[in-house]
Amino acid sequence: MSTATIDPVRAKAAAATASGNGAGSQNGYEPNMVLATKTFDVVGTRPVRHDGTDKVTGRALYGADVLLPGTLHGAVLRSPHAHARIRSIDTSAAESMDGVFAVVTAEDLPPAEDKIVDVGEGDTRLSYVHGNVLAAGKVLYQGHAVAGIAAASPHLALEAASAIKVEYEPLPSSMTAPEAMQPAAELLHEDLYTKEFGERSQAPSNVAEHVQWTKGDAADGFAHSEVVVERTFDTATVHQGYIEPHNVTALWNHDGRLHIWCSTQGAFVVRDVTAKILEIPVSNVKVTPMEIGGGFGGKIPVYFEPVAALLSKKTGRPVKFVMSREDVFVGTGPTAGSHVRVKIGASADGKIHAMEAMLAYEAGAYPGSFVIPGGMCIFAAYDCANVAIDCYDVVVNKPSCAAYRAPGAPQAAFAAEQVVDEVAAKIGMDPVAFRLLNAAKEGTRRADGPKFRRIGCEEVLEAIKSHPHYQAPLEGPNRGRGVAVGFWFNVGLESSCTLHVNTNGTVHLVEGSTDIGGTRTSIAMQAAEVLGIPAEDILPEVVDTDSVGFTSVTGGSRTTFATGWAAHDAAQKVVAEMKARAAKLWSLDPGQVEHAKGVYSANGRSIAFQELAAQSSRTGGPVSATATVKPRGVGGSFSANLVDVEVDPETGKVDILRFTAFQDVGKAVHPSYVEGQMQGGSVQGIGWALNEEYYMGDDGTMINSTLLDYRMPTSLDLPMIDTCIVEVANPGHPFGVRGVGEANIVPPTPAIANAIHDAVGIRMQRLPMNPPAIWSAVEKSRSS
Amino acid sequence: MSTATIDPVRAKAAAATASGNGAGSQNGYEPNMVLATKTFDVVGTRPVRHDGTDKVTGRALYGADVLLPGTLHGAVLRSPHAHARIRSIDTSAAESMDGVFAVVTAEDLPPAEDKIVDVGEGDTRLSYVHGNVLAAGKVLYQGHAVAGIAAASPHLALEAASAIKVEYEPLPSSMTAPEAMQPAAELLHEDLYTKEFGERSQAPSNVAEHVQWTKGDAADGFAHSEVVVERTFDTATVHQGYIEPHNVTALWNHDGRLHIWCSTQGAFVVRDVTAKILEIPVSNVKVTPMEIGGGFGGKIPVYFEPVAALLSKKTGRPVKFVMSREDVFVGTGPTAGSHVRVKIGASADGKIHAMEAMLAYEAGAYPGSFVIPGGMCIFAAYDCANVAIDCYDVVVNKPSCAAYRAPGAPQAAFAAEQVVDEVAAKIGMDPVAFRLLNAAKEGTRRADGPKFRRIGCEEVLEAIKSHPHYQAPLEGPNRGRGVAVGFWFNVGLESSCTLHVNTNGTVHLVEGSTDIGGTRTSIAMQAAEVLGIPAEDILPEVVDTDSVGFTSVTGGSRTTFATGWAAHDAAQKVVAEMKARAAKLWSLDPGQVEHAKGVYSANGRSIAFQELAAQSSRTGGPVSATATVKPRGVGGSFSANLVDVEVDPETGKVDILRFTAFQDVGKAVHPSYVEGQMQGGSVQGIGWALNEEYYMGDDGTMINSTLLDYRMPTSLDLPMIDTCIVEVANPGHPFGVRGVGEANIVPPTPAIANAIHDAVGIRMQRLPMNPPAIWSAVEKSRSS
Repeated sequence: MSTATIDPVRAKAAAATASGNGAGSQNGYEPNMVLATKTFDVVGTRPVRHDGTDKVTGRALYGADVLLPGTLHGAVLRSPHAHARIRSIDTSAAESMDGVFAVVTAEDLPPAEDKIVDVGEGDTRLSYVHGNVLAAGKVLYQGHAVAGIAAASPHLALEAASAIKVEYEPLPSSMTAPEAMQPAAELLHEDLYTKEFGERSQAPSNVAEHVQWTKGDAADGFAHSEVVVERTFDTATVHQGYIEPHNVTALWNHDGRLHIWCSTQGAFVVRDVTAKILEIPVSNVKVTPMEIGGGFGGKIPVYFEPVAALLSKKTGRPVKFVMSREDVFVGTGPTAGSHVRVKIGASADGKIHAMEAMLAYEAGAYPGSFVIPGGMCIFAAYDCANVAIDCYDVVVNKPSCAAYRAPGAPQAAFAAEQVVDEVAAKIGMDPVAFRLLNAAKEGTRRADGPKFRRIGCEEVLEAIKSHPHYQAPLEGPNRGRGVAVGFWFNVGLESSCTLHVNTNGTVHLVEGSTDIGGTRTSIAMQAAEVLGIPAEDILPEVVDTDSVGFTSVTGGSRTTFATGWAAHDAAQKVVAEMKARAAKLWSLDPGQVEHAKGVYSANGRSIAFQELAAQSSRTGGPVSATATVKPRGVGGSFSANLVDVEVDPETGKVDILRFTAFQDVGKAVHPSYVEGQMQGGSVQGIGWALNEEYYMGDDGTMINSTLLDYRMPTSLDLPMIDTCIVEVANPGHPFGVRGVGEANIVPPTPAIANAIHDAVGIRMQRLPMNPPAIWSAVEKSRSS
Repeated sequence: MSTATIDPVRAKAAAATASGNGAGSQNGYEPNMVLATKTFDVVGTRPVRHDGTDKVTGRALYGADVLLPGTLHGAVLRSPHAHARIRSIDTSAAESMDGVFAVVTAEDLPPAEDKIVDVGEGDTRLSYVHGNVLAAGKVLYQGHAVAGIAAASPHLALEAASAIKVEYEPLPSSMTAPEAMQPAAELLHEDLYTKEFGERSQAPSNVAEHVQWTKGDAADGFAHSEVVVERTFDTATVHQGYIEPHNVTALWNHDGRLHIWCSTQGAFVVRDVTAKILEIPVSNVKVTPMEIGGGFGGKIPVYFEPVAALLSKKTGRPVKFVMSREDVFVGTGPTAGSHVRVKIGASADGKIHAMEAMLAYEAGAYPGSFVIPGGMCIFAAYDCANVAIDCYDVVVNKPSCAAYRAPGAPQAAFAAEQVVDEVAAKIGMDPVAFRLLNAAKEGTRRADGPKFRRIGCEEVLEAIKSHPHYQAPLEGPNRGRGVAVGFWFNVGLESSCTLHVNTNGTVHLVEGSTDIGGTRTSIAMQAAEVLGIPAEDILPEVVDTDSVGFTSVTGGSRTTFATGWAAHDAAQKVVAEMKARAAKLWSLDPGQVEHAKGVYSANGRSIAFQELAAQSSRTGGPVSATATVKPRGVGGSFSANLVDVEVDPETGKVDILRFTAFQDVGKAVHPSYVEGQMQGGSVQGIGWALNEEYYMGDDGTMINSTLLDYRMPTSLDLPMIDTCIVEVANPGHPFGVRGVGEANIVPPTPAIANAIHDAVGIRMQRLPMNPPAIWSAVEKSRSS
């Protein structure tokens, strides 16, 4: 599973880009279809990615490759209990072992101040971040970090971990939101009160927050509906499943400056959060982001970075940690398991009159389940007058949630898009036609408040209707076709970019955005477009936090959008400077020089960018420019899937026969990488739909914490994921870009569930829809 | 020996800075005196250097610390002959050894095109650079590189080197300029013709260039002189003596990009020269400059960087070379040995009427002895109407010269300043008064053409006169006092600097200038001055060539001057942006906001830089700025020494009793580091004067190629070097800065020679003035 799949039909799709629509090619449909908006010279083409050779030859340097002289190796002692009070920790035996240099526990952290910190994709209480880094007083999930050890080798460190004596007093645990919401449930945090309607609850609770949005009058809407469907859905905890485990090397220097090398989606997040946890000035922390082997939202939080730092401070040596796969599963943030109730009412003519949802998500040990964006997205595709949505953020005894690609939205879509399908079926309407009739459009106001600007929901649905896949026959028994639509946001935040022009006309691009999906190239292309030079002549470089302006996390589908914008702005400054240089060469005023497609001209004279760059020393010295942005104008993205399945009723196994992903991407800067994102999101959605789950024992421990038992789809399990890029330019961005990385994971689970229903008539209300679950449901439907 | 000595009387000297003149303190003189010009808030203070902790705790990472996964280790096979034809090279035995991965010889280099390349401090023929990297056809000095080997360990690489069979045909060699200039001398290069008066000679020659400058009529000047002194001087080859040997790790990536980690004064020089040698685009080479353990001009040329690159290309693995001390001595560029004749004539009233010089410098194996700057500097301190100077750049069978701190000037000063002293003595004038009477000043035209702008030659001489050392009694037998003055330029070239403001009010400073003498701090201070914040709040970082705008070599005393200027300009851009941010906060026009000392104000409201930085996200995003400069306005620097010695006539040993270094530094940005530069240059000059030399056997091989036998002064050999900073602001720089790193090495050798003459009446005409030389001269003077 990768967010940047190689595109086997690149040439063909490029032709499709040029023609604006590649439908109707020789095999009856076009797997990589691009419904293009405005064309540019560089933006919209498919150059080879700058880091491609490094990646395929194994040259790219990852965190595990970092080995400083004198490095000590770390291990984390983790809780065996899902919920327990810590009576005592005795580290003396471990500390006295040969080759063990230091041990830290929560007592070594500075006291957790009760302030709010930005952890990359939102704010939380610093004490929660503290508590998750090293447990104090209680352990809240199996895998909760209790102590960190630095030793001469990783093996010694593990041995020392097992020599630490912790006395636990086990407590009852809650593993799902409904369980934890019971009045009798054991409290995880005695100081956690429900935030509700701007107040806090009288008594402490496992419900951290309850948000409610209403629009119109849902009860009245249902009263005027001829068809009403209400169902309840549950989804299991799943992990992002990045291939590269978390890793860190920390060196606390004698001058008080802390240098961290790690795999992260946000070097500045690691910098800022680590500085806050350790109570040192933010400028004392330098983070070098190494190459990243997948993140999907899960490489935003800080885990053992402060632990490695403290051990380095104690020992005076670099300290390195690399997680095992089990560490990753039990010690890092998966995405929330969920419990969602959806009720939709419509009139017989297909108009939706009322939509109601209750979402309760498992935040894990600390608040922050992403239920709120889930609630914002659940009905975002529909223009409905009467809506009521309730969101509950519930702490449970599982690892603290992290973001996972469109965090919160897939669980919501799994529920909503099945009910939508069921309503359409009851009315007797085609599911796409029904969605189109009710589709959100420019001006539609969501229940949570905002009005949509120009969006592509209708265009995506129209693309399905006109796609060959939608008309293709689907023959054979137990086969079905499903459709679903999804929405996800795009955030702006802050980005920086610096350009340095070489005398051979190439340009170094210095940026601070972790490249998790080809963004070195998609950002470079935007600079190249402005400069009128080939994308290959831009040399992008992701540098450390000391060497580039502040840049927010790579997340929220923002990087191509926002850092690309910074590159656009920096390139415009370079163009202005180059005009001045040409003017100097020709003894003219800079205002007299024109620029188009990399050629500077005035009064009949002209000079190419490359020649002008070669003259930079003669015309005043090197040419460099910096730009920073905090862009507004973000544009959300709608996606949809069309999926054909075959269900084996004897075993419950579901095969994906054909899968087409549609997405409004604004403008596809690099269509191959957009297709890769769409394919990657689809595959993760398929895994979530059919197999993936944290399989928990009765004692609240994870039983399947290996990649053999936690079953992600492999290429053998799947057909080629076809894509159809829909371009509805985002008017808020210079090139019309929308964030494209996330929306594609939203529709797969309901699209597959709808296809299963179409195939064998069962309505799956729980994820994963694995063979035992399907088999049981088929058996039950046969016996009923 | 270090260029950044700790200053034990910092507090006292700081007080002297404040008062403008610290003379007359409790012990009768002020060792670190600052005769200050304009005062600033940060510029001129003495903050702790940013990299200080890293250096004293051993945390700074040097090239030898670089160890990439899979690294192979290199060795260079060097010529045992001073001059020989290579009949054949058989690498087969070496290549077939276990653990040997590849061998390269000159044949592996692309053909050397005959074009001119900039090698950092001047232009030369690419074929010479090629030839020095790997010998082709002939070896021109003992130590000349013949082959490079990559093996599994450094030991295996050395063993493989010894298994390479080279058949040599030895040729006669010339070890000094006068020898090589003989008509019968064996030619080093059959295609080298003398460049002379814009023409090239008829026949090939070992004289690469003859330059002649005349001003007025020297013959007429001598005819009108009452005192004429003419003497001839010789100096031995000496090495810069940096503690850290050269090192490189090269990785030729599969994508064609070459990454080099090395110890260099100019990462962009290594980038550009390596690209030219290997015939690859300059943008395909990335150079990461590691910390540098001394350079003094000797870490500008490229040696095994292209060899490591070729071996990496052949093997697909990183290849690392680290020189031994012997490699450094025989394989890298020392400074030229010289042969100089000086003739000076003056009238009885002390006015110099004529000055004549012939300088013949040993370039080593390839042209480029720095004789031309030597000729430019030889009489630079004097305003004389009639001057004639001839410079000869002569190739000899020694390692190819590299720059060494004020390259070419010390050899010239050793000659000129002794003759000046002798003329003054004959007239019966005080040597300082004589120099003052004839001193160069604003408007004086040098024989080589340029007219001086505002310079500090007179001020330096006046400082000597008023310094307590000059008046202090010098009692005891065989003791003497000497004085001498020196001059060195300051170059501008090109520099870049980027600033990134953190929300806590600190600022990252990204630069490309190798820090060989505290320039991280002296550059940061100039940014801090403009921003009105403490120097400690600027965090300077020297980065790789991909991550910063083009920056010329750290050399020519340019870094604090030029990169500091870039920092000044970038900081001014930050101030402009901060005004705009304050204006946004207050809903005003940016033009209404004033800035002074880090406080922004308008209409009675004000906000500090730090608070404004904290608001950056609210006011438009991160604040960053880039500036590049190609400054004019360079200001040369005059230096002088006052030295007391005691000569032991029985052994010839010279003890330095007291040593005061004077220098016009324009404006001392960080007086402690300026003092450190003055002290370091003085110490290197003392070593050159008294001990250092390449001691060559009859066969042209170096006999003393260890630091035990090549005797540099240690702290036990020397008194504290007292300093007197003279500030005559350079009107061409925002803070009045002149380059200060080099001029201080120019006067020590003649000042010591003059002191020896004062002590025991002998006139030393050859360097080093080591015990055998002094003893012989004393014996000779006694017997005559």
